[in-house]
Amino acid sequence: VRLRPVTMALHHDLRIDADRLWQRLEALGEIGAVHGPNGERGCARLALTDADRDGRDLVVSWMVDLGMNVSIDAIGNVVATRAGSDPTAAAVMVGSHIDTVRTGGRFDGNLGVLAGLEIVETLAQHDVTTRRPIQVAFFTDEEGARFAPDMLGSLVYVGGLAVEEALDVTAADDGARLGDELSRIGYAGPTPVPAAGFPHAYTELHIEQGPVLEDDGVTIGVVTGVQGISWTEVTITGQSAHAGTTPMQLRRDPLAVAARAIHEVRLIAGYFGAPQVATVGMLDVVPNLVNVIPSTVTFTIDLRNTDEARLKEAEAEVFAVCRAYASDEGCEITMRTLARFEPVEFDDAMIDLVEGTSQRLGFTTRRMPSGAGHDAQMLARVCPTSMVFVPSVNGLSHNIAEYTTPADVEAGANVLLHVVLARAAE
Amino acid sequence: VRLRPVTMALHHDLRIDADRLWQRLEALGEIGAVHGPNGERGCARLALTDADRDGRDLVVSWMVDLGMNVSIDAIGNVVATRAGSDPTAAAVMVGSHIDTVRTGGRFDGNLGVLAGLEIVETLAQHDVTTRRPIQVAFFTDEEGARFAPDMLGSLVYVGGLAVEEALDVTAADDGARLGDELSRIGYAGPTPVPAAGFPHAYTELHIEQGPVLEDDGVTIGVVTGVQGISWTEVTITGQSAHAGTTPMQLRRDPLAVAARAIHEVRLIAGYFGAPQVATVGMLDVVPNLVNVIPSTVTFTIDLRNTDEARLKEAEAEVFAVCRAYASDEGCEITMRTLARFEPVEFDDAMIDLVEGTSQRLGFTTRRMPSGAGHDAQMLARVCPTSMVFVPSVNGLSHNIAEYTTPADVEAGANVLLHVVLARAAE
Repeated sequence: VRLRPVTMALHHDLRIDADRLWQRLEALGEIGAVHGPNGERGCARLALTDADRDGRDLVVSWMVDLGMNVSIDAIGNVVATRAGSDPTAAAVMVGSHIDTVRTGGRFDGNLGVLAGLEIVETLAQHDVTTRRPIQVAFFTDEEGARFAPDMLGSLVYVGGLAVEEALDVTAADDGARLGDELSRIGYAGPTPVPAAGFPHAYTELHIEQGPVLEDDGVTIGVVTGVQGISWTEVTITGQSAHAGTTPMQLRRDPLAVAARAIHEVRLIAGYFGAPQVATVGMLDVVPNLVNVIPSTVTFTIDLRNTDEARLKEAEAEVFAVCRAYASDEGCEITMRTLARFEPVEFDDAMIDLVEGTSQRLGFTTRRMPSGAGHDAQMLARVCPTSMVFVPSVNGLSHNIAEYTTPADVEAGANVLLHVVLARAAE
Repeated sequence: VRLRPVTMALHHDLRIDADRLWQRLEALGEIGAVHGPNGERGCARLALTDADRDGRDLVVSWMVDLGMNVSIDAIGNVVATRAGSDPTAAAVMVGSHIDTVRTGGRFDGNLGVLAGLEIVETLAQHDVTTRRPIQVAFFTDEEGARFAPDMLGSLVYVGGLAVEEALDVTAADDGARLGDELSRIGYAGPTPVPAAGFPHAYTELHIEQGPVLEDDGVTIGVVTGVQGISWTEVTITGQSAHAGTTPMQLRRDPLAVAARAIHEVRLIAGYFGAPQVATVGMLDVVPNLVNVIPSTVTFTIDLRNTDEARLKEAEAEVFAVCRAYASDEGCEITMRTLARFEPVEFDDAMIDLVEGTSQRLGFTTRRMPSGAGHDAQMLARVCPTSMVFVPSVNGLSHNIAEYTTPADVEAGANVLLHVVLARAAE
C-alpha cells in the first residue's frame, strides 16, 4: 500500500507499523527457538553458529528487500544503508545485535535491529527522504557468550581492538577460532575495519533487562550512559579438616572468610547507595562435603557504578575487606581481574533529544544509566550516541521468559523513529 | 620365639611388639593402596568392594594363624575369639573397622583392629591366659562412604537396625545392593545379628583424626564420649536477575542470605564455646554465573556438641537465623535433616581405667570427646565402653596424608593391652 507523500512538516505524525515490527520479531525469534515448560519462547543463537548464520541471512534478506545497500565488514558486522538526499553527509545509524546467550530471549538485541528496519520501511512507505543516509547495523558477538570479550564486533568497528586479534579469539567451549567460524558461515566480509568514516550519530533501542521501568510504571528509559564494570575473581585457601574433630579456634576455613566478605560486600553497596551495585553470582567450594572444612573457596565480585571514582572506591573497600578477613582467619587470598570497563557517558544533546521526543509522543520517561554493556557504548567513542530503553516484564532478560509488551515495543520504535528523523535532517 | 611364662603379677610389664604391629599396618595398607604426589601413602578400600574383600581375607588369615575362632555374622561383621580360662564368662572385645573412605589413610580403623591382633599375639607369646575370652572384631561399613548410614555393621550388631533393612541399602554411586555385594565378596556369614550375647566390655584404639592432641603435645586421648551430630541441608530460593540492571533494593539474592547466615553460624559457635563446633562444608549456587544474581543456594550446616541440650539450643539459634535472614530478603527457605545422632557418653569406670592405665604407663593424657562417629558409640549401647585416641599428624584424616608416628601407635596399643588385661581378669 502506497500512501500519500509526507512533507517535512508532517513528519511529526509519522508512526511505525507495530504489527509489522512484531511479525519480524516473531520470525527472527523462530530461528534457534527454545521453548520452556511454561510456554516460554526463548532463543539460542550463539555468535557465528549455524543459527546465527540463519538469523543473519534472514535479516540481510529483509535489508535487501527494503532496497538498502548492504555492507559486510571483516569482523562480520553488517551495515545496511538507505540513501539520503545529500550524498556527502554522514549517516545516522541505528542498530544492535542479533546474537543471543545460550538460553536467551527474543527481544535482547533483535529489537534494536528490527526497529531500525521498521523505521526504514515506514519512511519508504510514506515516501520520506531524509537529508542524511540512515544506516541499520547489527554487530558481531555482542553477547560474548561464545567468544570473549562481549561487544566484540562494535569494539573492532570503532577501532578499539585490531581485527587480526579479534579473528584469533577462540571459543571457550569448543575451541573454535572466531575467524574460521566467521568464514564458515559466510560473513567474513570485504569492508575494512575500523570503519572508514563514522556515523553522524548513533542511537539504539533496547529492552531494559532490569525491573526499574516496570517498577516505576514508566514507558521509556532515557539512557544517560553505561555503568563502569569491575569483575574480580577471589580465591581463598585455608586448611581442609574434619568438621567434627577440629576445634573452632584451630580452623582456617575459607568459606567462613568468603561468607563474611560477601555479607560485607552487600553492606558496602548499601552505604555507597545507588547507582552502586555489587553482586556475588558465582561461588565454588572445594572439596564441598558436609563434614569437611573446605580447603578452597572461589567466588566472583561484580561491581558497577556510573562514576569511575566511586567505582574505584568501591573496589578498594571490597578488596580491603576480603584481604582483612582472609588474614584474620590465617587464609591465603588471591584476586584476579576478569573484566574492567570504565563508565561511559552518552552525549547530552542526544540524551535531551530522546527525552524530549518521548515526552512529545506522550510517553512517561525516566533518566537512567544502563547496567549492562551495549554496542552503543562502543559507538559513543566515535559519535554522539544515545539509547532508548523499554520495560522488561519482571525485569527478566538472558532468560527464555524475557518479554516486552507489544505496546512498549511500539512506543520505543516510535521514539527511535523520531530521534532518527531529527538527526537525519541536520 | 617362646619366652618364659608370665604370672599374673608380672602382667604389668607386658608390652606389645611395635614392629610387628607396624608391619601388619603396612601390609594391610598395601591393599587398595593410593599414592600421592608428595610421597603420601593412602588407602581406598570402600566397603564390600574387591579391595575390602582382599583386606578382610588378609585380616581373617591372621586371626586364624593366631588360633582364634572366627565368626562372621549376617551383616559381615567378623569377630575372632581367643578363649579365656572361664568358658562361661562374657568376652572383653576390642575392634574397629577396615573399610576406608575413597581417599583415606592407613590408620583410621585399621589401627584398632590390628592392635587387637597384636594384643592377642603378645598374650600368646607370653603364655598369658586371661579369665575372660578376648575378642577382636571388625565391623562392616563403618565409614558409610559407599553405603549410608555410617557405622552400619556395629549398629546392626547391637540391634539398632534390622539386618533385612541393612541388606537392602543401595550404594549411592553404583546402585549396588549391600546384601548382594556382601554375598559377592563371600562375607554374608551364618552368625545371627543382633549378637546373641554382648561383650563384658568394649574398648577401641583409634587415631584422633583431629589436631587437639598434637596441638597440646599429649600422647593419649582419653575419650569421654562421642559428640552429638546434627546435619541440615538449607535451600534458599530468591529471584535470579541481571547483576548490572537490578538495583540493590529490588534484589532477592539467596547468596546474600546464605553468606549472612554462614557468618552468623560461625559467631554462634564462638559464643557457645567448646565443645560446640559448627561447619558449613558444602555450598552450591544456581546458576553460578558472574553477572547473574543467583536463583537458589543450597548449603549444609554440621553442628556437634557433647551435650544434647546445648546441641538443641545451637540448632534452634542457627535455624532461626537462617529463617530470619531469608525473610529479610524476601527469599523462600526450606531445611531438611540429613543426619541426627544424640551424644554418647562412655562408661565412667572405663574412662577412668583408660586414664589410669595411660598414666601408669608413663603417657601424658587428656580427656576429650570424639568429634567423629565410631563403632564404639554403638557398642556403648550394650556394654561398658571406652576409646583410646592417639595423635594424628597435622590433624589430618580421611586424607592420603593421614599419619600417626610409630611411637604413638605403640603407646596406644600398650594402653589398649592393659585396659583389656584389667577387664579380662574380672
